[in-house]
Amino acid sequence: MALGVFAPPGEPARVGARRGEEVLDLAAAASAGPLRSLLAAPALNPLMWAGPEAWAAARAIDDAPAYPLRAVDLYLPFAVADYVDFYSSLHHATNAGRIFRPDGEALPPNWRHLPVGYHGRAGTIVPSGTPVVRPQGQLGPGEFGPTRRLDIELELGFVIGRPSPRGEPVPLERALDHVFGVVLLNDWSARDIQAWETRPLGPFLGKSFATSISHWVVPLGDLPRTRREPQDPPPLPYLQEEPWAFDIALEVALNGTVVSRTNADQLYWSVAQQVAHLTANGASLRTGDLLGSGTISGPERHQRGSLLELSWNGEDPIALDDGSTRTYLEDGDEVVLRGAGLGEVRGRVSAR
Amino acid sequence: MALGVFAPPGEPARVGARRGEEVLDLAAAASAGPLRSLLAAPALNPLMWAGPEAWAAARAIDDAPAYPLRAVDLYLPFAVADYVDFYSSLHHATNAGRIFRPDGEALPPNWRHLPVGYHGRAGTIVPSGTPVVRPQGQLGPGEFGPTRRLDIELELGFVIGRPSPRGEPVPLERALDHVFGVVLLNDWSARDIQAWETRPLGPFLGKSFATSISHWVVPLGDLPRTRREPQDPPPLPYLQEEPWAFDIALEVALNGTVVSRTNADQLYWSVAQQVAHLTANGASLRTGDLLGSGTISGPERHQRGSLLELSWNGEDPIALDDGSTRTYLEDGDEVVLRGAGLGEVRGRVSAR
Repeated sequence: MALGVFAPPGEPARVGARRGEEVLDLAAAASAGPLRSLLAAPALNPLMWAGPEAWAAARAIDDAPAYPLRAVDLYLPFAVADYVDFYSSLHHATNAGRIFRPDGEALPPNWRHLPVGYHGRAGTIVPSGTPVVRPQGQLGPGEFGPTRRLDIELELGFVIGRPSPRGEPVPLERALDHVFGVVLLNDWSARDIQAWETRPLGPFLGKSFATSISHWVVPLGDLPRTRREPQDPPPLPYLQEEPWAFDIALEVALNGTVVSRTNADQLYWSVAQQVAHLTANGASLRTGDLLGSGTISGPERHQRGSLLELSWNGEDPIALDDGSTRTYLEDGDEVVLRGAGLGEVRGRVSAR
Repeated sequence: MALGVFAPPGEPARVGARRGEEVLDLAAAASAGPLRSLLAAPALNPLMWAGPEAWAAARAIDDAPAYPLRAVDLYLPFAVADYVDFYSSLHHATNAGRIFRPDGEALPPNWRHLPVGYHGRAGTIVPSGTPVVRPQGQLGPGEFGPTRRLDIELELGFVIGRPSPRGEPVPLERALDHVFGVVLLNDWSARDIQAWETRPLGPFLGKSFATSISHWVVPLGDLPRTRREPQDPPPLPYLQEEPWAFDIALEVALNGTVVSRTNADQLYWSVAQQVAHLTANGASLRTGDLLGSGTISGPERHQRGSLLELSWNGEDPIALDDGSTRTYLEDGDEVVLRGAGLGEVRGRVSAR
């Protein structure tokens, strides 16, 4: 049962569960006591911190009053602690390498040895439906203006529930105990700003203007899994497990046209491996940490999870059902990412 | 007057002011009301959020009871929101480029056009005195173990007080209104982990195990400034100001030997430019954001702010007063960064 934060008009925000087109008011049904306090909070963080028994108790409430989904306000489901974005899809990393580094090896030498990732801006993570103002920035030497290459990235976001202490790496076999659930994530990207700023320290303002997540956090156990081929080369011991991925059909709709259909099984590195890697140096986890999977792309053109790849950096326009074409996003465009069992995350571009 | 968070033994943590070797208990002296509430909090964030009038009122309290500094516990002075680390010293960036990219241009092409920066891990920022456990990680393909190149970085950290809304860039001329104060910052770095992981998305686990800051946040107005030469080329209009820097003598002591003496006037980009750049794309500021200046190095060898530069990546050992030499840090080593008017930030390396 997916959990989020909602409020009927004029009432305080609190934790709710989504059931179809209804929202269950869990706090109203919980007995007085600690669980009701956790559910009355205006963010999932206290419940997330409380751990798996509390999560199960919240999800077991089945006699809660229900509100129609369309009649309530929805909020960012949790306060984000640190936001880390990985780069865990082989086809996305390969495509990005071919586009940005055409004369070199497509995959960086480290890519098959570790889940490459970096920190993003937690303060600009917004809930589905928040308008995205076209960012401006440096587009090249001496050039400043609105981005001309506004893009999306189709990702899963993994939400950390139980924290871990600094100095104590989380072993892979216990990594999933720390994960409260999954959201859809759109890592909006301004490719021209990103390309100019990125050396040598990585993406910064090309990403930090907005990252959208879906309203409902879905428990790991609600999502089907599939086996993957063994990783080649076999990873180091701290990253070794039976290869698996979530089996979640995903799609990208642009102004109502589905421009990409892919699946979370295209992730080479698992969330368990990401957690084990992230903490291998002794870094702690905090309640509310958000781990983006990285853009999810499959091997075929229609399976690519970004416009960078779908349009091959603008060389190959994408046809929409209304007869228009796109390379990157125009003002007024609306993007909806959908995932089976995960709902959607949407956002519309507005002019600056 | 520098502010921090302290507690006499057995008492709750609250805001204090440092006066020499004493700590003033500001909440005990404030009249009942909003200011006393802000000062009774166990972190500076509520006061930081309240803005410059509240900051001035807190600093104007002069009849507070005093405790000897050595008799109280000191805490992380504020809860960190987003941590951004810049790269704003010309000599540091040039040295790093020469060491890591000996066949290319030392400075990346963007460096003189914008303050290069990236996001770091907020959850592992620790107060002065916290031991730093030697991190382990991937040192190269198929190789895992404790870092062999544990380093420090001498930086200033600028602390954001007043937030700014998403979508509204902070103009340079108002940037300093958002800055509550300055700390010393040691951006501990594992150079072997960093070198292997960093392409193409920048530093990650090579930095995220620990970042130390000093206990006391010093107001901008308490620190002297100096003029700098005009920037070449002149920056874009959103970054233009009369060139200036803080004039703060800085030093690095390793096991009691001062191995570097430099000055904050070696920062090419100012904190005002960093704030204007960080928000140029519409990114918001939050109370508790921390902006690292980047390692501060001067033109001479003895003015370099990292062991990477001081030892030229291990080629040129550093002599200590006890007759030993260092390239990178050994277990048991203690590093103290000091800044005129800023106090110190210290940390000792412990074995994993």
